[in-house]
Amino acid sequence: MNEIDTRTRLMLEGRRLFAEKGFRGASVRDITRAASANLGAITYHFGSKRALYVEVLERLFSDLAACVEAAAAPAGPAPDRIEAVVEALFAFFRRNPDAPRLMLHQFAAGEPVPEPVIPFLRRNLAAIRAVVLDGRDTGELRPADPLLVAFTIISQSIWFNLVGRPLHAVLGVADDPESFAARIQVHVAEVANRFLAPEA
Amino acid sequence: MNEIDTRTRLMLEGRRLFAEKGFRGASVRDITRAASANLGAITYHFGSKRALYVEVLERLFSDLAACVEAAAAPAGPAPDRIEAVVEALFAFFRRNPDAPRLMLHQFAAGEPVPEPVIPFLRRNLAAIRAVVLDGRDTGELRPADPLLVAFTIISQSIWFNLVGRPLHAVLGVADDPESFAARIQVHVAEVANRFLAPEA
Repeated sequence: MNEIDTRTRLMLEGRRLFAEKGFRGASVRDITRAASANLGAITYHFGSKRALYVEVLERLFSDLAACVEAAAAPAGPAPDRIEAVVEALFAFFRRNPDAPRLMLHQFAAGEPVPEPVIPFLRRNLAAIRAVVLDGRDTGELRPADPLLVAFTIISQSIWFNLVGRPLHAVLGVADDPESFAARIQVHVAEVANRFLAPEA
Repeated sequence: MNEIDTRTRLMLEGRRLFAEKGFRGASVRDITRAASANLGAITYHFGSKRALYVEVLERLFSDLAACVEAAAAPAGPAPDRIEAVVEALFAFFRRNPDAPRLMLHQFAAGEPVPEPVIPFLRRNLAAIRAVVLDGRDTGELRPADPLLVAFTIISQSIWFNLVGRPLHAVLGVADDPESFAARIQVHVAEVANRFLAPEA
């Protein structure tokens, strides 16, 4: 196993264990053992467990920002771009089922967001802002605070992807989990677009 | 210190430590030590750490359901009742700043919602459903799926009260944290009411 393999395995197992147990819960011993690496491998490759954690979050939020930016790119009516952003968020969480729990542990710990992650969070906001401002300029959307629109889209998408499964069971929803997720995805886009609909 | 005091202290310290560290992270030793009780006190008063945890959650979600029901009670136009529900949620989280983290740990752990808590979650849904159906009957609101409306209101309220503070710092929001929270509260109600506005 060469250097690159060990680094990649530490990233993968670190991510898995941080999602499962949180930053503090996942020990250096847990991660290095799961990655079949020696106890000093995290220090050698990343400098510290904290640095590995930040790199895991950076990778995740960088992927998310890229997806949201691609979906928001100007290529059609503003309401369709809002729909595309919601679709991208749901697709991202389908591809990264551990992502909401990674975010959750970060927030549940009540610690500040690591500095290097902040630019990626801001990129999501900027992508949604561009759609809201373009739509205002074309008259497709009423003027609205882009920060509030981004909040409405992102909070519902994350929350659903986090609690959707337990919620589905608890509420005795009639449709199967996948149809339910599709229904919520359409709903979140509709909520944002009705909020942004020009006044009659 | 009498029996009642010990039980109450175990509830308080259990709640504090479950919010801080999650169910698994908060040990029987941590809780009994913080409550100045002996190591067997949780078993004696509750039966198990799990039973103490479930009682903490039950108490919390029972208070929440009572607040939402009071706010949703039929005493005015349906859009005002929607506003009152959002206000009640934000007031609840102001009074119980540890509540989002307690919920978070529960969901981050990826475990099913404890059975005794489920009726309280359903009461929130039922209270919002009543407003949506009353509003449809009077023509103040368009027909909509009450489950989706409840999701939109509750997900944004919880998410904001969970991540609002770190978010506020990250996004460089101009107004102070309290004004920002007030602005989001108004926004969440407006989002729901625009979603429910009768078609022109």
